[in-house]
Amino acid sequence: MIRVPFETIQAQVERILSSRGVDPNQVRLCAEIIATNSIDGVTSHGVTRLPHFVGTIDQGLLNKHARPHHIGGLSAVERWDGERGLGPAMATQFMARAMELARTHGIGCVAAQNTTHWLRGGTYGLQAAREGMAAICWTNARPGMPAWGGTKPRLGNNPIVFALPADPPLLVDMALSQFSYGKIQEAALAGRMLPVPAGYDLVGELTVDPQAILESLRAGSYRLLPIGYWKGAGLAFVLDAMAAVLSGGLASYEVESETQADIGISQVFIAIDLAQLGVTEGVEERVRELVHHLRHGHDNEPEAVRFPGEGTARQREENLRLGAPVDESVWASILAL
Amino acid sequence: MIRVPFETIQAQVERILSSRGVDPNQVRLCAEIIATNSIDGVTSHGVTRLPHFVGTIDQGLLNKHARPHHIGGLSAVERWDGERGLGPAMATQFMARAMELARTHGIGCVAAQNTTHWLRGGTYGLQAAREGMAAICWTNARPGMPAWGGTKPRLGNNPIVFALPADPPLLVDMALSQFSYGKIQEAALAGRMLPVPAGYDLVGELTVDPQAILESLRAGSYRLLPIGYWKGAGLAFVLDAMAAVLSGGLASYEVESETQADIGISQVFIAIDLAQLGVTEGVEERVRELVHHLRHGHDNEPEAVRFPGEGTARQREENLRLGAPVDESVWASILAL
Repeated sequence: MIRVPFETIQAQVERILSSRGVDPNQVRLCAEIIATNSIDGVTSHGVTRLPHFVGTIDQGLLNKHARPHHIGGLSAVERWDGERGLGPAMATQFMARAMELARTHGIGCVAAQNTTHWLRGGTYGLQAAREGMAAICWTNARPGMPAWGGTKPRLGNNPIVFALPADPPLLVDMALSQFSYGKIQEAALAGRMLPVPAGYDLVGELTVDPQAILESLRAGSYRLLPIGYWKGAGLAFVLDAMAAVLSGGLASYEVESETQADIGISQVFIAIDLAQLGVTEGVEERVRELVHHLRHGHDNEPEAVRFPGEGTARQREENLRLGAPVDESVWASILAL
Repeated sequence: MIRVPFETIQAQVERILSSRGVDPNQVRLCAEIIATNSIDGVTSHGVTRLPHFVGTIDQGLLNKHARPHHIGGLSAVERWDGERGLGPAMATQFMARAMELARTHGIGCVAAQNTTHWLRGGTYGLQAAREGMAAICWTNARPGMPAWGGTKPRLGNNPIVFALPADPPLLVDMALSQFSYGKIQEAALAGRMLPVPAGYDLVGELTVDPQAILESLRAGSYRLLPIGYWKGAGLAFVLDAMAAVLSGGLASYEVESETQADIGISQVFIAIDLAQLGVTEGVEERVRELVHHLRHGHDNEPEAVRFPGEGTARQREENLRLGAPVDESVWASILAL
């Protein structure tokens, strides 16, 4: 593991994407986002993802010259087409537009079709929180969890994000599978069981055994467990349906699964401007008070209690000082791109 | 178990609430909602809840003469005060206002403080869906789940609702605890284990044993497990914080726990008008197509697959024909109220 500074990661992403002829605006946004994700400790959606990301550009799956455009809607709610551009650049522009609408109307919503994998959903929640806005956003994704009661994957892990401005911002950024594929592969490699039920084996029994889950994945059956069992399954379906209906775009099952790249997916971005709501001050203090009460009065130490957004803030501080931890071989492969 | 028709339930609720001097508008809304909840098969938030609900009125915890009023916000986002009126009546008016805002702006949001238990969240999702709107709404609640990593209850089960118009409407209405207290008490009475981890025992171990969970509840510790473990815990906290900050009202921990009635809680209602978004037709067909794909192609029967909103629609049809199933002793106690 080596430590790589923010600026170095950013410069490498810029170099690589520019060398592919990507539109400069998309280059700039993606470089900042990928470097930030690594600094925030979300390695899986930072540099580690870069070789795969560049691969999808080289295969022509992403549109290097995309310019998202308005295709419908009035006042505070709009429908946009992402032209299959680079997901993080598209999502940033969609959230920025939702925020612009919120500045005028108090709340704004952009539903986007024909977009691509946004990497880390938290990016867009933080984007809003930085400017004093609360945000809700989600995306659909190709199917990776079984329909509840069925045997085949029908539900995307459809990450959903909730963000509230504070210092650090409150941020929930969660896929609806209990664990990501990455975490299950990691456990399989390390030869350990997952701490709680994580998915299904070949005959549809719940298991903590990563090998058994990977077997069901290879067989094209069951796969991953949704959070809350039937509850997360229902939530995944309704988020998929809402994203597809609001944006007029593809539903999970229509997204090409072969490429493993979530091309042409649908996303929803909602921003609420606290200033328009008349909430002009005291939010940081209020959230600090809520966090304080969450952590104190237990039979163990306050530091044992986690709150959403805390881990990110801690890693960010450390990685800004020391550089983001990057696997040496991953970094070597990036330098060679 | 007896069967009671919609109109009979509605008339009883009207009689009882009117006899308490409740404002006629609140009477009308609550009677319709409580009767509908029973007909939809959500017994726990229908007539079964009525004796407790009336008890909170008789104790003076609910404001019989409440008239919710606007206290802030501009354009499409507003802040309201529920004056501690009857929760279902207040929530109906808040969602109606969010829908009114959505008719003008495409999307509307009402954040409400000083409101009370809304009974069944799905009521307000269906209210929007019936008029061609998508909806997201949630509420906070007194603490009943531990802070993640702590030992004491700090998180409300903060139900969240997502609804999309269709026939039947897609509807996710879920508390963030894996099971309600009701389900855990039911299992304890029947002497059976819960099907998946449901909460904590006295020493903080996860368990499927309802008796062990009720012991931790009596001891004022741990209690219920959030869906998705740490994920649901994070979500519960951020929804609580968003509701409190947007509405300017109480957070879960500030809600009086003694009364077990969720008095003075905070709620958020968001409605999106599909017509304003330019989605004028084809939504029902599109959702039917998504449900079809969810259910088919499995190694078992399509009917084995559940989709959110389906159970409600089926029970509604049966109960409209036969009357809602009501426990005989519960019904007797209602007639005596």
